Amino acid sequence: MIGVDWGTTSFRAFRITANGTIRDRRDGSRGIQNLPDGRYSDTLREEIGPWLAAGEDRVLLSGMIGSRQGWKEAPYLPCPASAADLAAALVDVPFTWARVKLVPGLSATDDSGVPEVMRGEETQVIGVLAAFGGGGIACLPGTHSKWARVEAGRIVRFTTHMTGEAYAALGGHTILARMMREGAPDPAAFDSGVTRSGEPGGLLHHVFGVRALGLAGKLDAAASASYLSGILIGHEVRAALPAPGTVVHVIGTPELTALYARAIAACGGYAERHDGEAAARGLALIGGHASWG
Amino acid sequence: MIGVDWGTTSFRAFRITANGTIRDRRDGSRGIQNLPDGRYSDTLREEIGPWLAAGEDRVLLSGMIGSRQGWKEAPYLPCPASAADLAAALVDVPFTWARVKLVPGLSATDDSGVPEVMRGEETQVIGVLAAFGGGGIACLPGTHSKWARVEAGRIVRFTTHMTGEAYAALGGHTILARMMREGAPDPAAFDSGVTRSGEPGGLLHHVFGVRALGLAGKLDAAASASYLSGILIGHEVRAALPAPGTVVHVIGTPELTALYARAIAACGGYAERHDGEAAARGLALIGGHASWG
Repeated sequence: MIGVDWGTTSFRAFRITANGTIRDRRDGSRGIQNLPDGRYSDTLREEIGPWLAAGEDRVLLSGMIGSRQGWKEAPYLPCPASAADLAAALVDVPFTWARVKLVPGLSATDDSGVPEVMRGEETQVIGVLAAFGGGGIACLPGTHSKWARVEAGRIVRFTTHMTGEAYAALGGHTILARMMREGAPDPAAFDSGVTRSGEPGGLLHHVFGVRALGLAGKLDAAASASYLSGILIGHEVRAALPAPGTVVHVIGTPELTALYARAIAACGGYAERHDGEAAARGLALIGGHASWG
Repeated sequence: MIGVDWGTTSFRAFRITANGTIRDRRDGSRGIQNLPDGRYSDTLREEIGPWLAAGEDRVLLSGMIGSRQGWKEAPYLPCPASAADLAAALVDVPFTWARVKLVPGLSATDDSGVPEVMRGEETQVIGVLAAFGGGGIACLPGTHSKWARVEAGRIVRFTTHMTGEAYAALGGHTILARMMREGAPDPAAFDSGVTRSGEPGGLLHHVFGVRALGLAGKLDAAASASYLSGILIGHEVRAALPAPGTVVHVIGTPELTALYARAIAACGGYAERHDGEAAARGLALIGGHASWG
């Protein structure tokens, strides 16, 4: 089958064998936001045409392609949800050259009843946690980081943290902007920020410290971005880590999972890092449960 | 004497009697950032000329006018510092028509050794807390909110919280911007945000909830700005309030002190609200200790 993780800004397709092995892949920037006037069908055919010609006829799509702004809306499925539950809720999309189905996103509420949604991450979480006895905690860092809990193969709840976007907004649109100079990541400054996030005073005080330390000559411009990143990621991890000693499966790019692994270790957890192929494994698992007719 | 609270964007002058009563005042926008090429001397003469003509010859300035970017730099005085300590560290400025002195800012370190500075707020804190037995907690909300502790007439420590600027950056430069519509303040939404700040998940999760609640139709655009404000001010107050039952002297505009008073009460403290004349009283007190030669 063919699995596609089709997001807002990226398009990643995998040709997958029945047992989940990736035979071939395509990565590109043809996310839904980068396509003119909903050219989804033509784009898909252009990207995976050679695989269709080679005999593939099942295509499973996950990510923002199934949102209201995408090809067709696949309504959110409420948690808890397993790979089989997701497979039973797939939405068909008309496509001349193969059967195409969309994975729905998931909805949940946090402990206080505030609603949550995810779209695309559910497939990555399923892809990773099936390999670990069907249970655990997954973290997908990014613009809007997700933390999900899986029990007995079902995603039971999750929360979102606006960490990546808060980093960009605070570092780029406040008085901190003039202290910042993007440079090579500074692991020592990042670690200091993570430590800082555990001290009294709260996040809004800690971020002001980026300026105060800079003014006092105790933090140079090149280190300030890593220090701010450490403060914010540290606050996220401390709020989201369920208990000391928890194993967290971190899914994402090597750069980001490395930072989160450092922060999780500093906050008393254990991190297992996973790369972007989590999506391919999740698509294979959900596709394996699906009724292709 | 004449006291002037001369900040980055505002100029507020007071003609004060020997016992601290305000006889006359001038408010304007001639802050140091709004003046061409350091026209400080001319501006001061234009603003207070009639009072000088009436016989005043002592002028005390507080605020950013004493910064490196101002008229002349008045180096930070380390905490703890009383009105008398500040008076002993005044910096003279040449001015043809009267004796002019600058109040220095204060420096401190927080409980973790991170440096802090203030300039202008020290005078307002002195102005308020002298009336309350010389001790207590003051909060000056704003772009960079300050919380100061006064013991026996001396400012002993303070912290800064980037609340106002974080509100502008998160509300204006993230995905929340499209949920927001500035409108009349919504007290119920503000209170919900303050309550939210005390729930699990942390600030970065709570701010994402502004979007999640909006998407779910549970928070309308007009209420979202007040809700975000409540989340951020709630986090500030919870981090800065020393203990339940603490009385906090909140100094600022009526709009802002009203919001902080609501949040402080919701977080278990008691708020006493003070207006901008705190600066005039502080200038009178410090001026009364000064040696005018």
